[in-house]
Amino acid sequence: MMNSKVETTVLMAEPFHVDFSGHLTMGVLGNHLLNCAGVHAASRGFGMAELNESKYTWVLSRLAIEMTEMPYQYEQFTIDTWVESVYRLFTNRNFRICSKDGSPIGYARSIWAMIDMKTRKPADLFQLHGGSIVEYCTDELDCPIERPGRIKVTQTEPVSVFKSKYSDIDINGHVNSIRYIEHIMDLFSLDYLKNHALKRFEMAYSAESYYGDELRIYQEETNQDSFDLEIRRMVGEKEEVCVKSKIFFK
Amino acid sequence: MMNSKVETTVLMAEPFHVDFSGHLTMGVLGNHLLNCAGVHAASRGFGMAELNESKYTWVLSRLAIEMTEMPYQYEQFTIDTWVESVYRLFTNRNFRICSKDGSPIGYARSIWAMIDMKTRKPADLFQLHGGSIVEYCTDELDCPIERPGRIKVTQTEPVSVFKSKYSDIDINGHVNSIRYIEHIMDLFSLDYLKNHALKRFEMAYSAESYYGDELRIYQEETNQDSFDLEIRRMVGEKEEVCVKSKIFFK
Repeated sequence: MMNSKVETTVLMAEPFHVDFSGHLTMGVLGNHLLNCAGVHAASRGFGMAELNESKYTWVLSRLAIEMTEMPYQYEQFTIDTWVESVYRLFTNRNFRICSKDGSPIGYARSIWAMIDMKTRKPADLFQLHGGSIVEYCTDELDCPIERPGRIKVTQTEPVSVFKSKYSDIDINGHVNSIRYIEHIMDLFSLDYLKNHALKRFEMAYSAESYYGDELRIYQEETNQDSFDLEIRRMVGEKEEVCVKSKIFFK
Repeated sequence: MMNSKVETTVLMAEPFHVDFSGHLTMGVLGNHLLNCAGVHAASRGFGMAELNESKYTWVLSRLAIEMTEMPYQYEQFTIDTWVESVYRLFTNRNFRICSKDGSPIGYARSIWAMIDMKTRKPADLFQLHGGSIVEYCTDELDCPIERPGRIKVTQTEPVSVFKSKYSDIDINGHVNSIRYIEHIMDLFSLDYLKNHALKRFEMAYSAESYYGDELRIYQEETNQDSFDLEIRRMVGEKEEVCVKSKIFFK
C-alpha cells in the first residue's frame, strides 16, 4: 500500500449489477462504497467485526453520492476511501470513484456514528483504541462535492406503500441501507430514467424499520428533476420517518 | 492456474449480501455462480462479451443449487466451475462451493444454450470456434447432486401479483435471472425461514418478461416443505410461463 490512509479497491461492473442502460445501479455502488469503508476500517482496527467484539458498531447516518458517469457493464473501476475528519460523536468518510484509466467519475461523502450495541447510545470516538482513529484522517485527497443538505417533505399522500420482505432484512433484523436506495429508484419509470441520468443521491438514515413493517414513501419535486423523499414506517396508527433522501437528475 | 479446465474464484460473504440469519442469500449465491461461469467462459474465448461481438449469446436454461450450509457474513468461500458436457444445442456446467477450509458445502448444476442474437434461434455449439468448447469438458470434479427435475403447478390462484420495476430489469430489457430468485424467496415469511433452512433451489427459465409486466406467482406444496412454483406474465388476457422453480427446505 503506497499510502495506508487511503484504501483503494478495484472492482468490475458485473452483469447482474447493471440496469437497463448497462450502467451500474446506485444501489450496487452504495453497497461497494460501504464494503470499501468496512475494509478500510477493519484493516486499521476499526472494522465492524472488530468493534462487535468490543460491543460497539458503526452506524451510517448520511450518504451522498455524486457521479458524472456510472461504470458500464464489465468495466473496471476503483474506489478510494479515506477519513476526512473525526469528531467526538461522528466521523466524515469520503470516497472517490475512478474509471479504468484513473479519471475521477464521481465522489461520495458519508457520516458515521459509533454506538454501544447494548445501550444503543453513541460512543466517544476519541476514547476508542486510545483515540488512534484520528491518525487515519487525511486531506491528501479532495472531495469536491457538496455536503449532504436539508431534506424537507410536506406531501401528505404516499407515492408507494408496501411491506418489507425477506430480501429487505439484514443480519440485525433491519431493512438494509441499500434496499432503501433500490425502493426509491423503483419509484421512477423506465421512460423517465431513459431521459434523465442520475446525478446525485443523498440518504439520511434516522430510524430502523423491521420485517413486515408497512413502509410508505412520500415524494416531492423540489425543483425540476430534483426530489426530496421520505420513507416512513407505520408504528400503530402513527408514522415514523426512517429515511430521508434527496435526488438530482441531469 | 493448476488446472485450466476448472476455474476457481475466491469470494467473501459481504454484509449486504447476507439475510436475517447472517447467511448468504440464494440470490447472491446465484449471482456469484453466473459470474464465475462468465469468467470461466470468457478466459477461454466463450464469454458473453466475446460472443456478443460474434452475434451470439449464452442463455441460461436451468439452474439447480444444493447447499448443506451457506457461507456466513464475512466468511471466505470458493466457487469452482467447469463444463461437464457439451451437446449440439446445450451444455452442462457444474459448480462446487467450498468453505474457507476447502470442504464442499454445496454444488450446482446449470444448463445453457447459445442463441443467435438476431434470429433468437439456437446456435450449434460444435460449430463455434471449430468446436473447441469440447476441449474444456472435464470429469475431474464430481457433482453429486440430482439433475433438475420436472416442475408442475396446477394451482389456479396466484400467491403474489406485482409489476416488474426498474431494479428488476437487466441490460437486455428483461427481468434478470437473479431477481426471480429474490421474488420467490420473498414469498416466505421470516418465521417460516427461521425454522426451515433452504436445501435446494431449482430454476427453469422458459420465457422473458419485461419492464412493467404484471407478474403472477403460483405456488404448490408438493411435499412437506417442498414447493413447485411458476412465475407467469400477463400477455393481454393470457398468461405466459416465464420461470418455473422447485424448492426444498430442511
